Amino acid sequence: MDVGVLYSGGKDSTLAALLLEPFYDVTVVCCTFGVTDEYQHAMDTAARVDLPAQSIELGREIAETAATQIVEDGYPRNGIQYVHEKVLEAVAEQTSFDAIADGTRRDDRVPTVGRPLAQSVEDRFDVSYLSPLAGYGRQAIDALVEELLLVESGPSDEIPKGDYETEIRALLTEKHSSELVEEVFPEHYQSRVLNRK
Amino acid sequence: MDVGVLYSGGKDSTLAALLLEPFYDVTVVCCTFGVTDEYQHAMDTAARVDLPAQSIELGREIAETAATQIVEDGYPRNGIQYVHEKVLEAVAEQTSFDAIADGTRRDDRVPTVGRPLAQSVEDRFDVSYLSPLAGYGRQAIDALVEELLLVESGPSDEIPKGDYETEIRALLTEKHSSELVEEVFPEHYQSRVLNRK
Repeated sequence: MDVGVLYSGGKDSTLAALLLEPFYDVTVVCCTFGVTDEYQHAMDTAARVDLPAQSIELGREIAETAATQIVEDGYPRNGIQYVHEKVLEAVAEQTSFDAIADGTRRDDRVPTVGRPLAQSVEDRFDVSYLSPLAGYGRQAIDALVEELLLVESGPSDEIPKGDYETEIRALLTEKHSSELVEEVFPEHYQSRVLNRK
Repeated sequence: MDVGVLYSGGKDSTLAALLLEPFYDVTVVCCTFGVTDEYQHAMDTAARVDLPAQSIELGREIAETAATQIVEDGYPRNGIQYVHEKVLEAVAEQTSFDAIADGTRRDDRVPTVGRPLAQSVEDRFDVSYLSPLAGYGRQAIDALVEELLLVESGPSDEIPKGDYETEIRALLTEKHSSELVEEVFPEHYQSRVLNRK
């Protein structure tokens, strides 16, 4: 059985891929909206941790709709949820994996993929949806990451990331002041995976 | 890191143990309320699939409270949920694993262990709670079972099971007619694990 794992090069999506690896043929899928080429950081991380990778270009309008939503709301939550759902659907539609997966965790507030959405994706695209970290809390995930991965942490402007939030932030910065972007969509302390231990 | 997996010898709890096995030192935990010795079937299955096992005797009053609830309700749902929560708490309290786990699945209606209950168990007993199947839908679980396990299925009276539902049903049968037990707590087509493939 093959699975495509939505992949940013971060701890969560890397751990999700590693939990699936003993049971599935894993390919990590690095998505871009064509705004920047930061998905290449995710491709680089995949190469370092020795996970087969492919990139997919998704419609720029997905990122634009999310960016508009985030500015209207004044906070990123709904925009992030929107973009995650659209990315899941697009990857399910554009690929032919037996299953698609992501790194959403039990304790995440956003994005979340509840049972109705999971079953809807499965029914519409004839694919299994897997969230291998959904049954793990923060403490257990931190312990697994500590055991399995070599991770670099630091302020977000010093840590290259390959997630689609970076592209949404770039879109926002094109259209608005960086002060507004920092206000509605703050960046935090970031981490990225350097290698397996 | 060691994990104790609540274990019935059925497909779900066996698959949960197998998903954890590459990452944790797994022990399966077979529970009994002292009503019958059917937990021995679970111990036997653990030996056949080569999973280290231990048994724990929990208070008979847990099964009695669940049985009373099931007769009062006329259906098993609340009683099953009650007993699962009490078993989780008792195993967390009586053992010293880094983590405890069960075979609850994304698509299960009962028992369920939502985030609030999971975090409450983790906080009260200083243990991680893992539900490795929480991120998998029915189709994906069936495919993994098909790939990994040799399973026997049949009418429930022909398939020896080691789950605590069997003991609750035995308690009910002591006190009530078997017609009433069959009415409020029907048995279905069952399956048990014979071996790994």
